[in-house]
Amino acid sequence: MSDTPTRAPGRTGVWFVGARGSVATTAVVGAAAVGAGLVPPTGMVAELDDFRDAGLPAVDGLVFGGHDVTDTPLAKRAEELAAGGVFPPELLPALGTALSAADREIRPGARPDAGRPQEEAARALTEDIVSFRDRHELDQVVVVDVSSTEPPAVPRPAHDSLSTLEEALAHVPDVLPPSSLYAYAALRADCGHVAFTPSPGLRLPALRELAELRGLPYAGSDGKTGETLVRTALGPMFAHRALRVRSWSGTNLLGGGDGATLADPEAARSKNTSKRTGLTAMLGEGVEGLTHIDYVPSMGELKTAWDHIAFEGFLGTSMTLQFTWQGVDSALAAPLVLDLARFVARSREHGAAGPQEQLAFFFKDPVRAEGSPVEHRLVAQFEALRAWYAGDAR
Amino acid sequence: MSDTPTRAPGRTGVWFVGARGSVATTAVVGAAAVGAGLVPPTGMVAELDDFRDAGLPAVDGLVFGGHDVTDTPLAKRAEELAAGGVFPPELLPALGTALSAADREIRPGARPDAGRPQEEAARALTEDIVSFRDRHELDQVVVVDVSSTEPPAVPRPAHDSLSTLEEALAHVPDVLPPSSLYAYAALRADCGHVAFTPSPGLRLPALRELAELRGLPYAGSDGKTGETLVRTALGPMFAHRALRVRSWSGTNLLGGGDGATLADPEAARSKNTSKRTGLTAMLGEGVEGLTHIDYVPSMGELKTAWDHIAFEGFLGTSMTLQFTWQGVDSALAAPLVLDLARFVARSREHGAAGPQEQLAFFFKDPVRAEGSPVEHRLVAQFEALRAWYAGDAR
Amino acid sequence: MSDTPTRAPGRTGVWFVGARGSVATTAVVGAAAVGAGLVPPTGMVAELDDFRDAGLPAVDGLVFGGHDVTDTPLAKRAEELAAGGVFPPELLPALGTALSAADREIRPGARPDAGRPQEEAARALTEDIVSFRDRHELDQVVVVDVSSTEPPAVPRPAHDSLSTLEEALAHVPDVLPPSSLYAYAALRADCGHVAFTPSPGLRLPALRELAELRGLPYAGSDGKTGETLVRTALGPMFAHRALRVRSWSGTNLLGGGDGATLADPEAARSKNTSKRTGLTAMLGEGVEGLTHIDYVPSMGELKTAWDHIAFEGFLGTSMTLQFTWQGVDSALAAPLVLDLARFVARSREHGAAGPQEQLAFFFKDPVRAEGSPVEHRLVAQFEALRAWYAGDAR
Amino acid sequence: MSDTPTRAPGRTGVWFVGARGSVATTAVVGAAAVGAGLVPPTGMVAELDDFRDAGLPAVDGLVFGGHDVTDTPLAKRAEELAAGGVFPPELLPALGTALSAADREIRPGARPDAGRPQEEAARALTEDIVSFRDRHELDQVVVVDVSSTEPPAVPRPAHDSLSTLEEALAHVPDVLPPSSLYAYAALRADCGHVAFTPSPGLRLPALRELAELRGLPYAGSDGKTGETLVRTALGPMFAHRALRVRSWSGTNLLGGGDGATLADPEAARSKNTSKRTGLTAMLGEGVEGLTHIDYVPSMGELKTAWDHIAFEGFLGTSMTLQFTWQGVDSALAAPLVLDLARFVARSREHGAAGPQEQLAFFFKDPVRAEGSPVEHRLVAQFEALRAWYAGDAR
Repeated sequence: MSDTPTRAPGRTGVWFVGARGSVATTAVVGAAAVGAGLVPPTGMVAELDDFRDAGLPAVDGLVFGGHDVTDTPLAKRAEELAAGGVFPPELLPALGTALSAADREIRPGARPDAGRPQEEAARALTEDIVSFRDRHELDQVVVVDVSSTEPPAVPRPAHDSLSTLEEALAHVPDVLPPSSLYAYAALRADCGHVAFTPSPGLRLPALRELAELRGLPYAGSDGKTGETLVRTALGPMFAHRALRVRSWSGTNLLGGGDGATLADPEAARSKNTSKRTGLTAMLGEGVEGLTHIDYVPSMGELKTAWDHIAFEGFLGTSMTLQFTWQGVDSALAAPLVLDLARFVARSREHGAAGPQEQLAFFFKDPVRAEGSPVEHRLVAQFEALRAWYAGDAR
Repeated sequence: MSDTPTRAPGRTGVWFVGARGSVATTAVVGAAAVGAGLVPPTGMVAELDDFRDAGLPAVDGLVFGGHDVTDTPLAKRAEELAAGGVFPPELLPALGTALSAADREIRPGARPDAGRPQEEAARALTEDIVSFRDRHELDQVVVVDVSSTEPPAVPRPAHDSLSTLEEALAHVPDVLPPSSLYAYAALRADCGHVAFTPSPGLRLPALRELAELRGLPYAGSDGKTGETLVRTALGPMFAHRALRVRSWSGTNLLGGGDGATLADPEAARSKNTSKRTGLTAMLGEGVEGLTHIDYVPSMGELKTAWDHIAFEGFLGTSMTLQFTWQGVDSALAAPLVLDLARFVARSREHGAAGPQEQLAFFFKDPVRAEGSPVEHRLVAQFEALRAWYAGDAR
Repeated sequence: MSDTPTRAPGRTGVWFVGARGSVATTAVVGAAAVGAGLVPPTGMVAELDDFRDAGLPAVDGLVFGGHDVTDTPLAKRAEELAAGGVFPPELLPALGTALSAADREIRPGARPDAGRPQEEAARALTEDIVSFRDRHELDQVVVVDVSSTEPPAVPRPAHDSLSTLEEALAHVPDVLPPSSLYAYAALRADCGHVAFTPSPGLRLPALRELAELRGLPYAGSDGKTGETLVRTALGPMFAHRALRVRSWSGTNLLGGGDGATLADPEAARSKNTSKRTGLTAMLGEGVEGLTHIDYVPSMGELKTAWDHIAFEGFLGTSMTLQFTWQGVDSALAAPLVLDLARFVARSREHGAAGPQEQLAFFFKDPVRAEGSPVEHRLVAQFEALRAWYAGDAR
Repeated sequence: MSDTPTRAPGRTGVWFVGARGSVATTAVVGAAAVGAGLVPPTGMVAELDDFRDAGLPAVDGLVFGGHDVTDTPLAKRAEELAAGGVFPPELLPALGTALSAADREIRPGARPDAGRPQEEAARALTEDIVSFRDRHELDQVVVVDVSSTEPPAVPRPAHDSLSTLEEALAHVPDVLPPSSLYAYAALRADCGHVAFTPSPGLRLPALRELAELRGLPYAGSDGKTGETLVRTALGPMFAHRALRVRSWSGTNLLGGGDGATLADPEAARSKNTSKRTGLTAMLGEGVEGLTHIDYVPSMGELKTAWDHIAFEGFLGTSMTLQFTWQGVDSALAAPLVLDLARFVARSREHGAAGPQEQLAFFFKDPVRAEGSPVEHRLVAQFEALRAWYAGDAR
């Protein structure tokens, strides 16, 4: 990892949707701890030597704020996460200032207000972000959605174009699901956007139109942090060796916040769709098997995934591969969230707008331009990432 | 996989060192079964669509022969392997002719003849191969070493250059270990060479000099068929995500022929060195952990490997990944051996000589030109393979 | 295992409900192969030295028949199972006579006949069994239910007592689920009964009353062959070491006939209830976790179960145990089915009637007398089995 | 677990050999924490309801002291262990007094003093224990060996009887290995003895003679805390189901103090012998497979064991069971050490002398009277333990 990287001047803001959640809290703690040199930048892709000359904003220059519907102080959330094993408690005493600073920049999120059009709520969210940028004299702000997973969006005609959407926002209640309302507010505030969850977010045609119109980059969706990370590392092995995968089954046990959300079958549907996407892309149709997500409260922040893969080799011989992944979700997600804010900020400096396909490396279900093929193989994604920020593939 | 690939004219011979072993026998059975359309070409990399236009020799045009020190008929070996679950017994009745044809072309191998110089033995081996090529009017023969693993070679001055070697072969006994004697004979017979084991083989400077001199391609060493295959698929995940691997431990249980060989600590040393090479290249120094190879006779042809990887993520958080691989070694190795013979034959048609680095995809410890960096990441190896045979990287 | 056991005189009939299914077919194949000395009696509890002097009927004296709703010949089923890896194909040629003999004694099962009372169907089933016993001059017949799992029974007043049941059978359609209709017929034919599935079977009060009235022994329910077998071996370890199990999660992958049945959530409910029973009995309430049963057709007869157990030790320290079981269900069930027929037959010779609690060793959800405590610990169950048939605990 | 158990009057001393090691430190911490009601008695067998009326000494009445060759303060060791995840750091502030009290009672252990007879050293060790008992007015002291594992003892004639031993101690240097010297001192101090390691300890005939002579109870050897615990839970499953285990292979990864010791092949030999004992006793001869113990320093106190069991079922069908155990050794051992001190103290109150076979439940390689059969099955061992202390089996 780099010791004297080339860094861009100016400062970048990171605005979290879900700013008091586990991922955002861990990201704020980690940015402060790494920035202060208390811990090495383990888990931060942007700090690899490969990106030493990419001109990414420095981690200790990031300024944090965000929206959240709860009001638990960040310092308290940080203590809970330390007690749950996400990071060592002895880090916290040195980070009080950083946590308070971020805490002061968290605004109440949009609460469901049934029966009223969302235009006003959107405007208020936008103003929160603009005011944050002005107050801290930031070059730009990247909005990162790390809030709870929502069910797939119910299709509506209002989602089809920017003009129909804005017409509807002014008059019809509940046009946008929350994640899309935040994304709309981010774009209106002239911000790049990162969808770290599988929620609808920016994926509606009307919002993609707005991003293109305003020349804003966006990345997503659904951070690839555990089981799917391993799947996209292993999947190509079978494909490139001409081994025929017959079934790929998985069970995830988790107890943290996302566990409770995903115990709801509707929310789990979003997640499962996004998890299955890569397998089909890498291995073709016809792979049997289910993926379960079980909420096991006593497991806390530790997530355990078991995958069983049955495949055929030469002359039809049956073989299997199993793996067990034991990870701490927030500790896996937080550095990637920081990476993404930095990469998206740099993309914008390069004048890149629309879906940032070169960031596919970070996602279960990467956004892409219409008709563009999708790459799920982890190493190929990494090479694309490196080439783009080195200027070879822009 | 391709249905009407572009195929090179002429016929290619495959000469096995260890022609009555599990891998060679399975390769002969499989080439015949696939060639006859009895089974799909599962496990054969050369049959992927990616190589449809690569001009590789067709699998049903391969002609087999080889050396072996035992004389068990191939048909009997094939029955034993079918009984051990390597392939379905019902395939065999249709393949009698193919097995007899190969069986007739197997000649007695070089037996240790203590006290006598090896020049004469080398000449006899070379003549066997030349005679095979002439008899079948083959365009070329590729020699593939699938014999038992030998200990690392004891360094001798005679290995340092072709002239000192040939001088020593004429007068000094036991200059070359068997795998190197076979490799020498192969080069003398004007053949490309594939080292599918970690034995010394062609790796001595004198033999590399001879290969360069005669413009012959060679590939190796140690086929990547199981645990190491998975390791090179998973390793880059940790490296590219900036996760710090603290330990990588492995235990292999196997009962087949190679199991008995590797129960000998000296032979296991060759294997372990070759297994560890890739981990260090991908993850750097300082990864703790051992790799065990246990001979468990009752497990027969089934090989089971368990790997445990302990790593640190963001803020030092400890996590683990474990995998269990249950594979049938011979069924994994046999299609690769056929692939390699075809790829090396095609390399030669392209005029390529010396170490074939683009074949690193197949090996635990890939040969390379002096000073050339080595790529262990499986997907990157695959992309290099594809590009080379597509002509993009030659 | 015993070489010259003490065997009871006379012959015992085994009447399978589901006589053409995987378990019954494997049992017939196995009894013939063991009886003929072709294979050792691996997997047969009754052949352990512990039961050498228990006076059990000899395996080669068993006579087979049964009911089934399909008419695939047993020899064909046996071939399919051999191809699926349940037993070696080379056994079959020697067993043709035994398979034909059993095949000739299989009668069409009761087909749902909506709208008609079941009295007549019950009578026909009973007559099939009686006729089988007479024709072969058997001392007794034990009826063993190895048919597909049914959903839990819908409670009806008619199930509450024998008199209300018999009144209803005469006049009301569909009073009994199929498994209970077969159990009723078995008791009417004066037979002991074994419920190897979790179907309602003999568990209705009216049928238990009939068994007591006629002095017939019965055993059940749901054969303990895989995941639950391991659970009842491991569960006591936690309990006796005062370790606190926080969660016990499981995923079963299976492709055989039972897999398809259990893909139906209603049938799976019976199975899951029976699987959870033991955990609660051994570890108390409050153990989190789910158990999944996934139908993965390509896995065929091989069943794979992964269990994850999270527990707390001294001072609240978190620890885990995981296991992966890879078994062949029919090969595990078949010898137990033969064991049960022999043990129940012997129970009857001892004059034992009603629930045979000493056979709890074989079942996920052991039958017991009203108010009797249930023992799930595998070793304690074995000791109880041994003591009973040795006469120490009768 | 019991809330108002019947407790014996008087106080019991626990004297640790290796009093500053991980196990002893955790035991002192845990006894204080449980005694103060800060944590429930998870992991303490003696606190199960089954032993509520057994008259065991209360945990909060135990008084600790011991020998050790290092002088790291207990409080510091406790902090290290808490940092390593053995118990929660927040427990420690409340336990300062208890740790200091124990710390004050730790005396320097016997250092190797080559060339001098051991009689004097033995006398000094004995005096330390006697003085501890007198100072605290204890009813009795139980000596518990939790020091590092030693290699198997080299047989010497002096070990064969008490008279030859005492003669040699007076004149010959290095007669006894350290663990046996401590055991000799314990017996001379009129103490019961617990061997929690596989070291020679009290197993020499001369020492057993001395224990019998003085009417002292002893228990051992080698605490069953992890892989072997699971093995003795699972082994009977195969035996009682007549399944034929073909191989049982294991790999242990550990980084704690015992890990470094066991990286020495000689010390590992003691451990492996004791680990293999139970498998052979439960499953008979001829089970293939090795057990590895790998020292992986970065894994710290966490011990991971993977076991692979290949077995045959009915008709020779091959199946497997694998398990992965992830435990914290000291947290598993410490409550057992407290249990053992209490059980041995109670045995002595009952007048029991010599090998305490009813404590086999706690050990990998249980001591027993000459010719007595050994029981390795975990549940049967528990039943024996319960029966003995309930008075049913004394």
